This record gives sequence, C-alpha cells and structure tokens, in this order.
Amino acid sequence: MHSETFHLPVDTPHDVLLSLIDRLNADDRFHGILVQLPLPAQIDEATAIERIAPAKDVDGLHPVSQGKMLQGEPTYLPCTPSGVQQVLLRSGYDPAGQHVVIVGRSNIVGKPLAALLMQRSIGGNATVTVCHTRTRNLSDITRQADILVAAMGVPGAITADMVRDGAVVIDVGINRVDDRLVGDVDFDAVAAKSEAITPVPGGIGPMTIAMLLSNTLDAARRYSSK
Amino acid sequence: MHSETFHLPVDTPHDVLLSLIDRLNADDRFHGILVQLPLPAQIDEATAIERIAPAKDVDGLHPVSQGKMLQGEPTYLPCTPSGVQQVLLRSGYDPAGQHVVIVGRSNIVGKPLAALLMQRSIGGNATVTVCHTRTRNLSDITRQADILVAAMGVPGAITADMVRDGAVVIDVGINRVDDRLVGDVDFDAVAAKSEAITPVPGGIGPMTIAMLLSNTLDAARRYSSK
Repeated sequence: MHSETFHLPVDTPHDVLLSLIDRLNADDRFHGILVQLPLPAQIDEATAIERIAPAKDVDGLHPVSQGKMLQGEPTYLPCTPSGVQQVLLRSGYDPAGQHVVIVGRSNIVGKPLAALLMQRSIGGNATVTVCHTRTRNLSDITRQADILVAAMGVPGAITADMVRDGAVVIDVGINRVDDRLVGDVDFDAVAAKSEAITPVPGGIGPMTIAMLLSNTLDAARRYSSK
Repeated sequence: MHSETFHLPVDTPHDVLLSLIDRLNADDRFHGILVQLPLPAQIDEATAIERIAPAKDVDGLHPVSQGKMLQGEPTYLPCTPSGVQQVLLRSGYDPAGQHVVIVGRSNIVGKPLAALLMQRSIGGNATVTVCHTRTRNLSDITRQADILVAAMGVPGAITADMVRDGAVVIDVGINRVDDRLVGDVDFDAVAAKSEAITPVPGGIGPMTIAMLLSNTLDAARRYSSK
C-alpha cells in the first residue's frame, strides 16, 4: 500500500485545501483520502470533509458514510468506532444484548459508535446509552454498563467507583499529561475490578489505524472491480 | 403550498420510480419530495431515497441528511423525530439533562431520534438510551426514563409497570387493531401515572405532518434565496 502525506502550512487558505481534495478525488492513484483533524480556525471542518468523494472516504466521516451507517447500509465505517467494535468482537466480548454505556458524544467517537453498536448486525445489537457533560448522576449510569466506553478526553475521569465489578472497559481517550499519554480511565484502579480493559497507549489507537488500512484496502478492491 | 401526489401501481418497476424522482428533482416547481414508505418488494428503499436530491429531501431520510444530523450540522431533520422533539420543547419538557429511553431502533424513528436528542443543541442534550428486541431487562431500563419514547410498533407493549411515576411518555406507535388505531403504550394505565402522555391517534402523527410542512417551507425559502 503506497501512501503520500501532504503537509500544508497552518495558514493554508480554505480554497487551497479544497482544491487539493478535488485533485486527489480525481487522481485514480489514490483510493482513499484522510483529512487529518483538527483543522486550523480558517478552515471549516465540515466543508472540507464533505468535499472528499464518498468513494474515497476511508476515514468514514463524510455525511453520506455516517448517514448510511446510521441506517445500517453498507459503507465505510469510521475508524475509531469500528476499531472499538472489532476489539470487542475479536476479544470474545460480543456487544449483542449487552448494555454499552458511552461517555462522550464527539463526532469521531461517541455519536458514531452509538449508531454502530445499536445496529441489527454482527457486532451490534447492544443496548446503548450515551452520556456527556449534561448527564445527571453519571456514575449511576456508568455502573450499569456491561461494556463501558470512555471517550470524553478528560484524563483519568473514569474512576473505580464508576465501574461495576466485571465490566469490560474501553478507553478511547488519548491525553498528554506532562510527557506521558494517558487515557480517560484511572487505569490501575479500574483494571483491578474489570473483566478486561484496553490500555492507553496501545489499545484503541492501533485499532483505529488498522481499520483505516482495512477501509483503504476495501476502497482499492472496489475500484479494481469497477 | 401546492402539492401533487403521484400514485404508482404496486408493481411499478424500480427504474420507473427512479425516473420519476429524477424528473421531480429537476422540476423547480417542486421544492420537496417525499417517497411514501414502505415500498413494494421489487423496489430497493435505500436506492430510492438516495435518488432524491438532498436539497429536496424534506422527509430528512436521505443519508446526507441523516449524516449531517448525526454530526450536528444544519440539515432537514426527519419529520417524526423532529416532531417528537418539538412536542417536548413546546409542552415545557425540554429534554436537556433528562434521561430519554427510546424503545425501538427503526430508521425512521428510533435511531434518528436518538441522534437528534443527544446533540449539543436546543432540544438536545439528553442522556439517551436505545432499547430494542435484543435488550435484556427492558423494564429495568424503561423505569429509569424521565422521558420514555415507545416506537416499536407493538400494540400496548409499554405497560404501567414499565413506567416510573411522573414520567413523560411519547407514543410513536400506530397500530391497526380490529378497526381502531392504537399506540405502543397501554394508554389508560400509563396515563394514570405519567406527568404527560401523547395519544394515538392525534399525538405524534400530526406533529410529523407539521414538521414535513415546516421542512418544505424551509426548502422553498432556500430555493427562493438562491
């Protein structure tokens, strides 16, 4: 798999980024395009993402991809949610029938992950609750989770008292604290009472990259079979 | 507001329906197009809906509309979920901070309603749980609801023991039983213990139609200001 990175200066004008996306959309040497987020203030993120041809949206963040996912239609799945789903399935923790509590409602993790895990499909069929900054009695809800997903971006915010014994804990947070990367979960204390837990770094991060490669491979195969 | 209904025979071929949609997409006398669901077996529903120009998708069911809604971007909101949100807001039951439990995960109600109510926006900010046929201990979860939404299409399935005292109950079900229309909620028993409840017929049904008209008005205004 050949890959090219286009490093643009931080003050790149909006139309220059859009022109680059147009050029890559039209270039059949590229089967997938990922716009690295977040973008500087002069760029409208939604406009940039929407400019990607849906057939090359291997990051799964185009509205068409997200809409199809919500409707249970085949599409590129967003990489982090898809990575969470795969790590559960491949570790023997099928979410079907489980109560999954997701803390955080970002566009790249919380909301699409909720949509994915409630589908009537393999890796879906979970009862899903989404919590966030406006949730009252957060720990009453997190303690009900068979599978708890932390995706709020607050270091160590999920403490042991918020997790029931034997829960499966997925930590999507990646926070830089001093010179270390830490997750949203107070790892040692929560690991002591959970059935399984993903570390940070080395947990969902590599899964996200794996799903991006998988989507890109799918895109290349689809292109070749056209 | 002028409206035309195109009644097609039940055995209409797929390409005939798609051609009609293409024609209406291109006809600037029409600002909105709604394909009445469900469709007969020879028609692929997703393909038909995707054929509607997103600018005329006043039913809010095109993947682009659904994806933008999930991402919190401005778009046409699907009519039934949007009607549920408006009836809550306009009756003084702002879902912000409330635990909303939705029973049912259809493409036209449960999934988009969950996406809508969890947004960081007016009428959103709810803690949202989606339950369905695969949910274990359903009544343990429904009894936690500040706002309970029944959208499974099973007459009288939500009984009084599943509802906490003082809950707000929204009944989206419309089921024909003998010659009557009934909802998914056992109305009399649940009404006796709830703070507020929507009837069937006469509750969410008319709200759905109102939101369709509102979306169509928006579409016409957007067209006129182009």
